[in-house]
Amino acid sequence: LTSELDTLATFSDTPAPAVTRIVFSEADRAARQWFKNLCAAANLTVREDAVGNTFARWIGSEPHLPAVGTGSHIDAIPHSGKYDGTVGVLGGLEAIRALQQSGFQPRRSIEVLMFTAEEPTRFGIGCLGSRLISGVLDAGADERLRDKQGSTLAQVRAETGFTGSLDDVRLPSTYYDAFVELHIEQGPLLERDKIPLGVVNAIAAPASARITIEGEGGHAGAVLMPHRRDAFLAACELSLAIERAVKSTGSTDTVGTVGICEVFPGAINSIPSRVNMTSDVRDTDLARRDRALLQIDEATREIAARRGVVITSETINADAPCVCAPRVVEALRTACSPLVFQDMVSRAYHDSLFMSRITQAAMLFIPCRGGVSHRPDEYSSPESIATGVAVLAQTLKTLAS
Amino acid sequence: LTSELDTLATFSDTPAPAVTRIVFSEADRAARQWFKNLCAAANLTVREDAVGNTFARWIGSEPHLPAVGTGSHIDAIPHSGKYDGTVGVLGGLEAIRALQQSGFQPRRSIEVLMFTAEEPTRFGIGCLGSRLISGVLDAGADERLRDKQGSTLAQVRAETGFTGSLDDVRLPSTYYDAFVELHIEQGPLLERDKIPLGVVNAIAAPASARITIEGEGGHAGAVLMPHRRDAFLAACELSLAIERAVKSTGSTDTVGTVGICEVFPGAINSIPSRVNMTSDVRDTDLARRDRALLQIDEATREIAARRGVVITSETINADAPCVCAPRVVEALRTACSPLVFQDMVSRAYHDSLFMSRITQAAMLFIPCRGGVSHRPDEYSSPESIATGVAVLAQTLKTLAS
Repeated sequence: LTSELDTLATFSDTPAPAVTRIVFSEADRAARQWFKNLCAAANLTVREDAVGNTFARWIGSEPHLPAVGTGSHIDAIPHSGKYDGTVGVLGGLEAIRALQQSGFQPRRSIEVLMFTAEEPTRFGIGCLGSRLISGVLDAGADERLRDKQGSTLAQVRAETGFTGSLDDVRLPSTYYDAFVELHIEQGPLLERDKIPLGVVNAIAAPASARITIEGEGGHAGAVLMPHRRDAFLAACELSLAIERAVKSTGSTDTVGTVGICEVFPGAINSIPSRVNMTSDVRDTDLARRDRALLQIDEATREIAARRGVVITSETINADAPCVCAPRVVEALRTACSPLVFQDMVSRAYHDSLFMSRITQAAMLFIPCRGGVSHRPDEYSSPESIATGVAVLAQTLKTLAS
Repeated sequence: LTSELDTLATFSDTPAPAVTRIVFSEADRAARQWFKNLCAAANLTVREDAVGNTFARWIGSEPHLPAVGTGSHIDAIPHSGKYDGTVGVLGGLEAIRALQQSGFQPRRSIEVLMFTAEEPTRFGIGCLGSRLISGVLDAGADERLRDKQGSTLAQVRAETGFTGSLDDVRLPSTYYDAFVELHIEQGPLLERDKIPLGVVNAIAAPASARITIEGEGGHAGAVLMPHRRDAFLAACELSLAIERAVKSTGSTDTVGTVGICEVFPGAINSIPSRVNMTSDVRDTDLARRDRALLQIDEATREIAARRGVVITSETINADAPCVCAPRVVEALRTACSPLVFQDMVSRAYHDSLFMSRITQAAMLFIPCRGGVSHRPDEYSSPESIATGVAVLAQTLKTLAS
């Protein structure tokens, strides 16, 4: 498995240790073919859907039953590392091979899934494949989504050889009986507390927005304070209001971030006339997140009125967070014992967030060094990965029996 | 005069109506030669100093007496208009020609001055010529100041034909008896109140600084609020503290602006790790401005300690404001009567700020449309300019008699 992770990292548009594998690039296409060959070598039945989601099935003794799924993604943002997503795809395959070698015969089919474009790099939206599978994204995305070169998803799919209708990507809730995703934590908690395994019982989801503030510019010397409509000072108040709102929910699971703030015209002696900023508010509980958003909306109106600026907010996404399926969480917990593990929350997006719409889903985290992800120095030890795969195999065995 | 202003605007590196005339560019050199020819045609004695400040003197009947000066600048920032500075230079020359035609014979010499580089565009410091004249800037600037191409002021001066020592630019306090600068307001007050003339009795000056805030980055989902050291939220608090400080001085003459705020890494799902921002605090009263700065310093320390970020501030400049000379202000008021005028404060930098260090100085403002300046649509009507020049001529007559 370690060797396969190393090989997968060589399918990249940037030199090692940086990995860049944008969906449907040459590197991605070559990696897909290589992965399908591995699955075929393990006697799995491989199929691809119209958007390139790849399913490799170990057929169970009762093949008509809903299957047990596992998997993740292999696309990688520019200059990232080799463990994000890949550990769940190649680790899923490894878990199946381990079960095969142990002589286990599954009742339900076990399927390893490679999702298309979990990363938003090319089409500006994350979890493209799992959104389509779960029906959160409709087939209109085919013409609506464009990459930076202006090509539609339909055009890029066609060039890559995926010509079917996106309507056929959606899966019914009878397709899977359960879904488990193995992933590196992408956070510092497991490593810090020296805990080898994290059982994810909830996945947070961001409500994110692009915010524009229009005020009035002017010379920093000439316009007196009472006459100003400074767009940046409004942005400052709004950013602090976002912080206050997420801190006041009563749960540390609520987080909020203003990551982008661009100030125009951007001169030392000019009053800012316009600001473009973003907000990203996440929680594991939808009602709590919505209460924070409501508080932010109220603050926005108050600030705009008081400062005489126009604040417009465009929602980028507002996906619902999910609570993981208790039955799958319990199967993971049992498989983890007698190793040390802890229940935890995933605060990053994952395909499992959308899979939970159509089946019972949960996730298993393993530590990564320093909590670092999306960087060339992203690292998870072979021991951590082996532990994760062993627990995943045991969980798939339980769920497929 | 209107025709001369139009001609001067054609010496530009951008097409009309935008004017771009950077100091010592081809356009600036050509404009300088054209202006010297105009002065020679008016029988004025022209000299240039080592930095290109240009003096055109109408010799008085008692030429050993300290002279009466007037003037401004002709350099123009990229894509600006044709009235900022130029009205004071060509208007000063026009006032002299009008006095000549009226048969007036001055006792003191009257000199129109064209300052080099009032705008900071090329060398990053405003009022270069008048700073050197007044001794606020020492001759070391010759090697210290560089343009974007890396050329020192010494090199650029030499290429332009100004080869003398910068030490010789400084003028003694016995050189001028008084100095008056005619300028467009660059603010909205005169136009708004339909007042044709403003007598400037004080010139504000900014204390400006580059501020860097270092916090800690991280994933917008993974790092909980209590563990954050968000550089941007610290910048927001500091910007609002600057606003509070300048509003709490008890005078509307105190203004403060954060015009630049750059957020790094600048991604929607990344906690800001670093911010580069600027502050610009102005007042007509140095002690009051310093009290505001002290309050900002205290807020800076408190915010840095509470948020666990490092805030460093580098002073760009902290020039003292000036109160204009009562005798020159009174001469302007008298010349304005019986027209309507108002006493006012200049909140922008002008060469007169530095001239007030070596002589008795004041300024005369005329309205400009919408308070707009530094833009191609900057405009002051021929009537406004004529009124300003007439009052300037009367004032020079009084001061030179």
